[in-house]
Amino acid sequence: MKYLNQTEAINLDQYLFSPECGFSVDQLMELAGHSVAWVVNRHYAGLKTLVVCGPGNNGGDGFVCARHLHFWGHDVTVLAPKEGKGALLEGLRQQMRIMGIPVLATYPEEFQGNPAGFLAQFGVIVDGIFGFSFKPPMRDPFASIIRDLRQCGVPLVSIDIPSGEDVERGNVTGEALQPAVLVSLSAPKLCARNYHGIHYLGGRFIPRCVQERFQLELPPFPSSDPAVRLPS
Amino acid sequence: MKYLNQTEAINLDQYLFSPECGFSVDQLMELAGHSVAWVVNRHYAGLKTLVVCGPGNNGGDGFVCARHLHFWGHDVTVLAPKEGKGALLEGLRQQMRIMGIPVLATYPEEFQGNPAGFLAQFGVIVDGIFGFSFKPPMRDPFASIIRDLRQCGVPLVSIDIPSGEDVERGNVTGEALQPAVLVSLSAPKLCARNYHGIHYLGGRFIPRCVQERFQLELPPFPSSDPAVRLPS
Repeated sequence: MKYLNQTEAINLDQYLFSPECGFSVDQLMELAGHSVAWVVNRHYAGLKTLVVCGPGNNGGDGFVCARHLHFWGHDVTVLAPKEGKGALLEGLRQQMRIMGIPVLATYPEEFQGNPAGFLAQFGVIVDGIFGFSFKPPMRDPFASIIRDLRQCGVPLVSIDIPSGEDVERGNVTGEALQPAVLVSLSAPKLCARNYHGIHYLGGRFIPRCVQERFQLELPPFPSSDPAVRLPS
Repeated sequence: MKYLNQTEAINLDQYLFSPECGFSVDQLMELAGHSVAWVVNRHYAGLKTLVVCGPGNNGGDGFVCARHLHFWGHDVTVLAPKEGKGALLEGLRQQMRIMGIPVLATYPEEFQGNPAGFLAQFGVIVDGIFGFSFKPPMRDPFASIIRDLRQCGVPLVSIDIPSGEDVERGNVTGEALQPAVLVSLSAPKLCARNYHGIHYLGGRFIPRCVQERFQLELPPFPSSDPAVRLPS
């Protein structure tokens, strides 16, 4: 299986959204978020869930994941310190409101200065902070949230890359998350080569000729599952 | 459970897409089509599949269903005699092309005058012709395709309503399809009251407060399934 560098990941993404392929961001974000929710539900069914969303499409995947988990019976809270731009991300935020999913911009007042106490309430935390377009360095508020998440002891499920990792070189600063579960989307990125946790490939939407064009050599997905577990 | 009249179905749809709810057509079409594909795969796994698409959103659900079935290993052909308008439907058509799913505008030349011979090649046929906004009378090419489908003997799976039925009064003309499986989306329409085949409710995306606003009284969905079987 091929591991993508940052340029390849960006090119694959852009090609899927080109007129030649005809996918919309809404469609693939829906499928990506659904596959992450499916993995969370498989390993942490019914647990109180925090989804931490960055301002970009990785955060959008997080919102979609939160929506599905809510419908599947999870008690979900979202922490989204920076508002994303555009109709899609604004719509996803509005969906949270109408579904009654709390969306926090900061830790609740009673937990200011005690992030560990806040995070310890959850059985699993989904990391939708940074995706494949991340360039270091990390900045606040995400740098401190990632530090808190790294120390909290609650199992983490990272979307596409562990937040804080260099997309190609991995955890070079030592400050990145070390998730219990990683759900690579479309195809794994170079940073996942040395990942030894529970690794899934989600986002079952790459047509065969696109796989060939980018020489992806993806594994087969079983039945109608939206994600497949990879050997660690 | 409540059965919706045509106005209620239209109002529910419009409300979901309003800024108050924040859903996009792409998102809900993706989830609707996925739930139909899931039902088809549950009852007719692996069978050669024809998806017949009308020019509107019911046809769009059909295209999404075709894409998922393709990824799940079905040999899929689409029959879409009239091109839908807009970026979403054009994009879905383009996805079929890049995935190698044949999209036919008419029966193939060798089957002109012999629709039964063409249709008999398939193990299951998905009816994505007309949805809840259908107003009679039917016109060609769909009137004759529906007549052919009614006579072909291949099991049919209808999306949202059996094509040809009056949304509220059912099969008043006697010319509507009588599908083996009906997948109602969001909530069943009045025409489904007297349906005695295999009946599913798909489209697991109605927030509780929207259910209350429209007094839908939907049944619970099991686990992470995108559809639930209703009593016949």
